[in-house]
Amino acid sequence: MKTDVQIAQEAKMLPIKDIAKDLGISEDEIINYGKYKAKISLDVYKRLKDKKDGKLVLVTAINPTPAGEGKTTTNIGLSMALNKIGKTSISTLREPSLGPSFGVKGGAAGGGYSQVVPMEDINLHFTGDFHAITSAHNLISALLDNHIQQGNELGIDPRRIVWKRVMDMNDRALRHIVIGLGGKPNGMPREDGFDITVASEIMAIFCLSESLEDLKERVANIIVAYKFDGSPVFVKDLKAQGAVALLMKDAVAPNLVQTLENTPAIIHGGPFANIAHGSNSILATKLALKLCDYTVTEAGFGADLGAEKFFDITSRFGGFNPDAAVVVATVRALKHHGGAKKDEYGVENFDYLSKGFENLEKHIENLKKFGVPAIVAINQFPTDTKAELDFVINRCNELGAEAVLSEVWAKGGEGGIELAKKVVEVVEKNEADFRFLYDINETIKEKIEKIAVEVYGADGVEFTSQAMKQIKDIEKLGLDKMPICMAKTQYSLSDDPTLLGRPKNFKITVKEVKISNGAKFLVALTGDIMTMPGLPKVPAANSIDILENGEIVGLF
Amino acid sequence: MKTDVQIAQEAKMLPIKDIAKDLGISEDEIINYGKYKAKISLDVYKRLKDKKDGKLVLVTAINPTPAGEGKTTTNIGLSMALNKIGKTSISTLREPSLGPSFGVKGGAAGGGYSQVVPMEDINLHFTGDFHAITSAHNLISALLDNHIQQGNELGIDPRRIVWKRVMDMNDRALRHIVIGLGGKPNGMPREDGFDITVASEIMAIFCLSESLEDLKERVANIIVAYKFDGSPVFVKDLKAQGAVALLMKDAVAPNLVQTLENTPAIIHGGPFANIAHGSNSILATKLALKLCDYTVTEAGFGADLGAEKFFDITSRFGGFNPDAAVVVATVRALKHHGGAKKDEYGVENFDYLSKGFENLEKHIENLKKFGVPAIVAINQFPTDTKAELDFVINRCNELGAEAVLSEVWAKGGEGGIELAKKVVEVVEKNEADFRFLYDINETIKEKIEKIAVEVYGADGVEFTSQAMKQIKDIEKLGLDKMPICMAKTQYSLSDDPTLLGRPKNFKITVKEVKISNGAKFLVALTGDIMTMPGLPKVPAANSIDILENGEIVGLF
Repeated sequence: MKTDVQIAQEAKMLPIKDIAKDLGISEDEIINYGKYKAKISLDVYKRLKDKKDGKLVLVTAINPTPAGEGKTTTNIGLSMALNKIGKTSISTLREPSLGPSFGVKGGAAGGGYSQVVPMEDINLHFTGDFHAITSAHNLISALLDNHIQQGNELGIDPRRIVWKRVMDMNDRALRHIVIGLGGKPNGMPREDGFDITVASEIMAIFCLSESLEDLKERVANIIVAYKFDGSPVFVKDLKAQGAVALLMKDAVAPNLVQTLENTPAIIHGGPFANIAHGSNSILATKLALKLCDYTVTEAGFGADLGAEKFFDITSRFGGFNPDAAVVVATVRALKHHGGAKKDEYGVENFDYLSKGFENLEKHIENLKKFGVPAIVAINQFPTDTKAELDFVINRCNELGAEAVLSEVWAKGGEGGIELAKKVVEVVEKNEADFRFLYDINETIKEKIEKIAVEVYGADGVEFTSQAMKQIKDIEKLGLDKMPICMAKTQYSLSDDPTLLGRPKNFKITVKEVKISNGAKFLVALTGDIMTMPGLPKVPAANSIDILENGEIVGLF
Repeated sequence: MKTDVQIAQEAKMLPIKDIAKDLGISEDEIINYGKYKAKISLDVYKRLKDKKDGKLVLVTAINPTPAGEGKTTTNIGLSMALNKIGKTSISTLREPSLGPSFGVKGGAAGGGYSQVVPMEDINLHFTGDFHAITSAHNLISALLDNHIQQGNELGIDPRRIVWKRVMDMNDRALRHIVIGLGGKPNGMPREDGFDITVASEIMAIFCLSESLEDLKERVANIIVAYKFDGSPVFVKDLKAQGAVALLMKDAVAPNLVQTLENTPAIIHGGPFANIAHGSNSILATKLALKLCDYTVTEAGFGADLGAEKFFDITSRFGGFNPDAAVVVATVRALKHHGGAKKDEYGVENFDYLSKGFENLEKHIENLKKFGVPAIVAINQFPTDTKAELDFVINRCNELGAEAVLSEVWAKGGEGGIELAKKVVEVVEKNEADFRFLYDINETIKEKIEKIAVEVYGADGVEFTSQAMKQIKDIEKLGLDKMPICMAKTQYSLSDDPTLLGRPKNFKITVKEVKISNGAKFLVALTGDIMTMPGLPKVPAANSIDILENGEIVGLF
């Protein structure tokens, strides 16, 4: 069997200018990064802004197993299939993070015969967007520490700096550090740490901004620290937003690439799905909506986290009206939710499947609450039996949800035609009636409770005393009228990763509520969120290489 | 008067493919990064490898004042002027570092009417080479700390790790840090620090490599730490060289841009002129030599440091035979060397000038030792009087050196025609007889002494006991047969920055000798070398901005 990178390196790519041309974008409107990658000038959106939007389809998933259920692969396959059945379609995806490529997993550009290419570039430096974010983020850090060093006119409390540094690397040794050692010429000693770049608030802002101007204004409003008097220190106090905007001037333009079947994909932004909202940039989606019939986008993790945030945060800021949602499920993950052990995934078992189906059932119910029609895509594995697949389809149909098999991993667009047809059928019924779950003017507690009870199925929410104090502080600052960005495990509908299926009789515990004042959301943390991954005992980097003939090995 | 960025933004640039075409490079042989920047495929050099090399001219300078004497500007102006008088010429330059742009100084892409463009891009992320180096460097760090965390099979001594992390930022608070805090899941606590990216050994290797394969092999041989048993730990022990090479796969291709007069410039690599050798990549220079009549390159700092290292390190590894050297001098810097205070630079004074001329005299003598004919370029300032300029020219002529006025800052190529003609005249005499100052098989002490006595004019060298021990260790490891990379102040021929002019009766003190085993040179440190700059009280970043119309302000 061929590896992903082998399939990708054998792809017959078209020059990216031809892909652009098919979308009605001229050579003057793209900025080439080599022959197969380009940035699309923001002028294209300006030119098309009065054009009617196409349809918007979100690809989301059940609560996944650690291996993931093939959301990105399904997204790409669906988009290729839509193009096959005569609907122009663009995959809009998140940019993969560099650091994790050298750890456990390989790339994040789809898999099998549903990939975006050139996948090795997309998984490495791509067009430099993440490097720009890293530089911009760390410039703010340097300016902050320099301000303290040069006399600390603002009265910044070195014990209350909330702006860590970032690096696009899995590097646990940088989680907790002490900086500014070595005496007076070398800064003020204080505790600090590094997050991975995707966890930067600049990343979230980058993905939620409507323009470079909007980005600059949001960056200016980031809270980086608190003063000795308790009041917040903003990026604008450090006069850093102009330099940050300059560093981001090229990054804000969406990136155009192609799928293995030469259909267009726009890959732009990759915010952490945990402490941020986890969907590609608003600019990318808005542009795609002008350029094609069906924009297929994705959201991080399961539908409880990813789809909820896509609806309540991304769609709110972007003004999107999703027409349908595809929920990716696998037989093995459903069995996992029903209690199967890893070595039982491949063995036919209707008890596990029936019990685990409840997880999918809840996600289908949830999508209805947002007024978005759901289509279940069963990402097929060779070990799935026909009876198992039929079982899942029938159960979905009983719930009034459409369900189809997807073989896009093995067959590319061809394997997604049934799914594509079903998506078109559902969308053309025009039954979507999209609505937010909450109003931003509700109180912080009301908003969090709504998400916990209605989406997670919890009985209620417990707030720690720390969270209570933080909520009070946020209200005092007048910053409570913002959407909530939930940070929760993706493995369970609850905040306990071991509660599989559809847990009942549980409460969500909110331990902390943090302000992302530039991104304009409040992060509610329900557990310890790891914002800097580590490397495993045998890192992927050990076997990664580029041979003299240019062949890449070990990456994927 | 227009600022550099205003002049640059008014430039009428040609599409970079046209610049390439003029050099005989087809569209298929370049990788575009937007319309005005491109990487040149390494295949071009392979195609031309049997072609005869053009002439190689090094631009160097006297010991500078802190403001610099206009070496890059002269390089660009000379190259433009050569094109004007019918000689095809390419400027080969170092890439500017991002971090310092936000500190005191602006960009580093020439000045006035002798600039390379698009200067704002060149000064920001450019084609991502430095970001690739940063990622590659820090991947090695992450793998190293992960190795210790996962059981430390190699027996790495956490007290003897010599591989710091890097960031392309002026950030003094990261100079001395403690990492791995927070308990067992978060790494082994140890001292660490960040250097600025240009100081990375990967940067030096990047600039000295002949190919990606060569780079990989050099990276494998970097010494990153020592074991508890005292033996060295190499990058190859961490199995990181393949992943590093993959991260560097695009970066190794030289970058093509243009001057304000649409002549070609290749800008590639920017190693620290202090702890590294300070000249652009060998690949860039080798390629330029195949593509034009006159390749004009530059070296960091004054001729005592920059030119010596260009000859003894870069030219040795690259197999270069420099045909001439241009020594940039200014009347104000000569007066400075003669004892003038800053407010006296603009006042005619032949005592200062005559005394300060001795500095230039020594550099002219030095170039003769390498068998390279010297041409003095007097970078003219409005305050220079005709009598002063004549004085300098006459004194040069008395020494048998050619000297001409240069007005390239104010007039572009037109202001460098006389210089260009003189360079051609000197080169066509074919009097260069290039030779190294030392043989690499001499002992470490012999090599350092030769540089100190013959180039700096010292009476001898004193080695601290630490340096003596390090030399012994290096000899024991069998790594002594490498060229020496001197790290010394650029402000004086001696190792004391306050000794101006042509100091006599002094000794050089070598405090440390370090191994750059991947770069394949030994660094002799004569003082405290700052490898991570800080920001000033009012950083340039505070006034940098990009306006809604795209205009960039404050950067330069």
